Order: sequence, then structure tokens, then C-alpha cells
Amino acid sequence: MTTKQIVFAARPKGTPTMENFRFENIELPELQECEVLLQGLYYSVDPYMRSKMNDAKSYTPPFRLNQPMEGGVVATVIESRSAKFKTGDLVLGRLPWREQIITSEKNIQKIDTVIAPASYYLGILGMTGLTAYVGLVHIGKPKAGETVVVSGAAGAVGVAVGQIAKILGCRVIGIAGSDEKIKLLKEKFGFDEAINYKTTPDMKSAIAAACPNDVDIYFDNVGGEISDAVIYNINFHARIPLCGQIALYNSTEVPMGPRLQTILLTRSVLMQGFIVSDYQSIFPEGIQHLAQWVKEGKLKFMETIIKGFDQLPNALLGLFKGENTGKMIVEA
Amino acid sequence: MTTKQIVFAARPKGTPTMENFRFENIELPELQECEVLLQGLYYSVDPYMRSKMNDAKSYTPPFRLNQPMEGGVVATVIESRSAKFKTGDLVLGRLPWREQIITSEKNIQKIDTVIAPASYYLGILGMTGLTAYVGLVHIGKPKAGETVVVSGAAGAVGVAVGQIAKILGCRVIGIAGSDEKIKLLKEKFGFDEAINYKTTPDMKSAIAAACPNDVDIYFDNVGGEISDAVIYNINFHARIPLCGQIALYNSTEVPMGPRLQTILLTRSVLMQGFIVSDYQSIFPEGIQHLAQWVKEGKLKFMETIIKGFDQLPNALLGLFKGENTGKMIVEA
Repeated sequence: MTTKQIVFAARPKGTPTMENFRFENIELPELQECEVLLQGLYYSVDPYMRSKMNDAKSYTPPFRLNQPMEGGVVATVIESRSAKFKTGDLVLGRLPWREQIITSEKNIQKIDTVIAPASYYLGILGMTGLTAYVGLVHIGKPKAGETVVVSGAAGAVGVAVGQIAKILGCRVIGIAGSDEKIKLLKEKFGFDEAINYKTTPDMKSAIAAACPNDVDIYFDNVGGEISDAVIYNINFHARIPLCGQIALYNSTEVPMGPRLQTILLTRSVLMQGFIVSDYQSIFPEGIQHLAQWVKEGKLKFMETIIKGFDQLPNALLGLFKGENTGKMIVEA
Repeated sequence: MTTKQIVFAARPKGTPTMENFRFENIELPELQECEVLLQGLYYSVDPYMRSKMNDAKSYTPPFRLNQPMEGGVVATVIESRSAKFKTGDLVLGRLPWREQIITSEKNIQKIDTVIAPASYYLGILGMTGLTAYVGLVHIGKPKAGETVVVSGAAGAVGVAVGQIAKILGCRVIGIAGSDEKIKLLKEKFGFDEAINYKTTPDMKSAIAAACPNDVDIYFDNVGGEISDAVIYNINFHARIPLCGQIALYNSTEVPMGPRLQTILLTRSVLMQGFIVSDYQSIFPEGIQHLAQWVKEGKLKFMETIIKGFDQLPNALLGLFKGENTGKMIVEA
């Protein structure tokens, strides 16, 4: 029995291309005790995957060359030698990019599709929602009445951050890159203001105008000049959870920018890089809140679902062109 | 009765000069109920004073033009209409740069010269020591065995940070700007290593060599390229208390440098700008520890004392040329 896999073929210099991936057909070995055979249903593609393509010191080990790519996958059990799983079970795990996957029972957990559709476990009830929750609530520590700015606001984490900040009584300003996204943020997701950085010549002034009381929390998904413009408007005792720096991921050398530490110093600002997996003790509390808010209709979720296992590399590359609104997922 | 005062005459563009100050003789008014007349003994000059010379948003309001400069002063009570103070008492307060000073009893507190010499209350038992304590202990949260790097290490705060880190079981590397200071840090203050940034061509490699396990806490007094070199060697989950950015204070525009947020993000680093006055609840605990360590001889203190009230502006300008080792104080 064979299956198709997508391997990491070459480390990109700058923006990744299709050259960095290779499709292969492999023989599946025999199922061992405590293993299951899965049919992949939904595959997550995420910005963090770009930094794993570099052979650099980072919070997660880099992807290994000539090994399959891996990420969050929702799958159906089609054969089981585990007492914990039976054929037909829907499961979630960090798994290789293969159409069919053999894995140990230790690597997967069952999901409950009564609470939410299966794909939500790759998003709002998974790492996406928890990233927003941990960064905003535990690092940002929002107080009602404060001003929260989110960059990459129309991304999966961004829309969750904005809505949670609204639930907690904050004024919320989103930054995104198309008029369509701006409209969506304001009309569908209830942001107080949203700014299209691609059509706004002076972001610093635009943020000042949108934030008359300055910025108390800046949830940073993008880095670069957009972040500079926000930090020029940062308030005393502000908090900056650093969640992503997508503007910089594809740089081949360290890009230059203004030295903003003097602002961080004189305004007593906190900047905290974080990775959600360091905050596992908060996950149960986070999932409980997220599921409750989803159930109440206060926390909406959007997915860009691309059809076809073969589209995985394209979908990942699309993240860096802003092709997604909300969580980007590939459906096999 | 007249006294001499030093007023802030003009906001500097770039590095301050004597042109920014003016000496005046003023008439002292009659002493009112609850006021005291003081003879200034020791006047503190500190790097933070530079940022108060700009008319910019900062943690403390800027100095006002044509008003006396002000800062920490130790003085003797020479006349009192306060029930709380009598002639001869030694007091500490945030006071104007005048040879004789009339102030309310609310602005001063008595000091105990049995515990330490009077000038120490401007330094190791005052804002200097507390700044080191708050930044290192409460923001840096050092664990025994960790590596601590301090820039501006031969400054008043720097030597305190290094010694406290040693007391708490850390490996300590200092960065300073002369071979004399390097020798002092290693021989007098017990730093494990010290690096002269003025004679070291490749600071990034020098720090890497001195910190084989990378940098867990970077106590930043200086900013600029020195800080870049340290941050390139920062460890996962490191903490960077931002205490000063003296390399940048005299810049007339925002200087450029590498964008380091990607490092902060991928290594889950905390950067926290702070001002000691936000941490008043920690002062009693801090002073208790500092006094104990001083008493035990574990925490040594150095002062550069310049003689003559008229030398105050010169002494302040000298801070930006690195003329001090330890706390810079003017003795009237």
C-alpha cells in the first residue's frame, strides 16, 4: 500500500517557492501494536512554518531536509491496532503531510464535532485561538476601556484577538492589507476601526487619529514598518505581545529599522516574544473560554479552505501573499 | 538672603553643552510654617536627566525652561519651622539645584548615617541601588547558574547589578569602555568577565566567547550597537530589563539599527522598559537586601565625587563622556 507525501526539499533563501517542496510516493509499513492508520481530512498551514524552514535557532527545531513537512492535521481513523481509537474516530495531531498516515496512539487525540466542526480544531479551538488568548489575555492583560491595536488583523489569530478584546471591553483597531479585509473587520468582526496599510500613506498619523488615547496593547503579527508606526503611538505601561513578524520572515539578512528601545524605555513598555506551546497550563482555561464565546456567537471564525492535498505547498506560499482571510486550511 | 541656583536655559539639540544651563542669584523668601531651610551637601547627577531635557513624552515630565534643574540632594537642615525636622538633621529629597533650599517638610526624609555614609543615599541605598535591584531581581528574575550581561557595567547601576547577580549565583559579564574599568570590574567587583567595547572589533563574537551558554539576562544601560551584539547571543526565554539607552539619548533623530524583534519572537524573549519609581512597593524589601549586602561587604560601591556646586553642569555632561566610575556625585 502506497501513499503520497510532501517533503521539504531545499531551504529557501528569501521567499519560499514550489522548488522547496517535492512530492513522493512511499510504501506504508505494516501497522504495529498501538498504532493507527489515518486518512487525512484537514491540514493546517501557518506562518510559523516559514521560520522552521531556516536552519536557525528558534523555539522549534527546523524542518529536516528530505523529510515530510508536518503540522496540525485532522484525520479519520481507518484502521486501528490501538485500544484507544476505533475506525471512524476523528482525531487531531501534529502529523506529517501524507495522504494516509501511520502514527502512534500517543500522537493523536479525539475531537468532538458536537461542539464545533472538525476544522475548527485546527483554528479557533486549536493553536490559533489559544495563541490569541494567551497573547492577548495573559501577556497583554487588557483592562476594559483600553485601546488594542492588532496587525495582521484579518489573519486567523488577528480576528480572534480583535473579537476577544471587544468581549473584554476594549477599543479595537485592526490593520490589514485590502479594503475588503477592512470592511470585514468592521462589519463582521466588530472592530471599532480598521486601517488599510497599503492605501494609507502615513500610518503613524492614521494610528494616532484612530487611537486618541494612544495604544495600550499592540498585538504584533507582522513587524516591520507597520509596527514602527504603532509603537510611535504607544502609551505608558503598554504591552506588546510579539506573535509574528511575517514582514521579516522572508528577509535574507537582518533588515534595518528605527531603534525603538528608547520609546520602550521612556514609556515603560513590555515587549514579550511568545510561543503558545510554552503556556500549556493555560490551555484548559483558554479552550473553555473560547468554546463558550463561540457557542454564544460572540467569537466568529473564518476559514479559507483550499481543496486538494496537492495544494498544501501553494496554500502555505499564499500566506505570505496575504491570500487568506482567517485561518488557512487545506481539505484533502 | 540670597543663594545661587542653576537653571535649565535651553533645550539641547544633540549633546548638551554649558549653553543649556545658566547660573543665577536669587532672593530666598521667608520661611513658612512646615518648611525648612537646607544647606545642600551632595547633589546627584544621573543619565535620566538627559531625557528630561527633551520636550518629549516620557515617564517623567520634562525640565521646565528657566526653572532650576532638580534631582536627588542630601542636605543639612539649617533652619526649621517644621516639627518633624530640627537644625542639624541630615535629609534626602528630590530638590532644586540651589546652594540653599527652602522646601516643605513633605519633600524630604531623614537619613541614618550609622548605616552608611550620607552620599550612599544618593546611590547604593537610593535610586541607583533600587534601580539595579528592581531591574535585575524583579524583571530579570535571575536563577543561579544563569548568565547575566550588563552594559554600562562600570556605571553606578551597572556595578550594583553585576554584584547582585554574583550574590544570586549567576555568571556575570560586564561591558565597559576602558581597560581601567575592565580591570576594576574583574578585580574589585568580582565580574567573571568584562569586555572593553572600545577595543573589541567584533563584539558579537566576543560576547559569544564569554557566554558559552548564551545570555539569560541582559541588563541594558546603553542601547545601540552594544545591545545588538548582546541580543544576537540571547538565549531562549531571556529577559532584557531596559534601564537606559545612553548611546541614543543625544541623537537628534531616531537612529537606525537591525530589527531584532524576530530574535525576541523566536527565542521567546521579554524586553521591559522600566522606571524605578513605578516599583515603590518593592523599595522596603530592596533597601533591606541592599543594606544587608553592603554591611556584609558583598556589595561594594564606588563614587566619583566632584567638588563644588558650580561643577554640577560639568558633572552631568561628563556622564555622557563616560568620565565616571560608579555613581557621579557633586559635593557642594
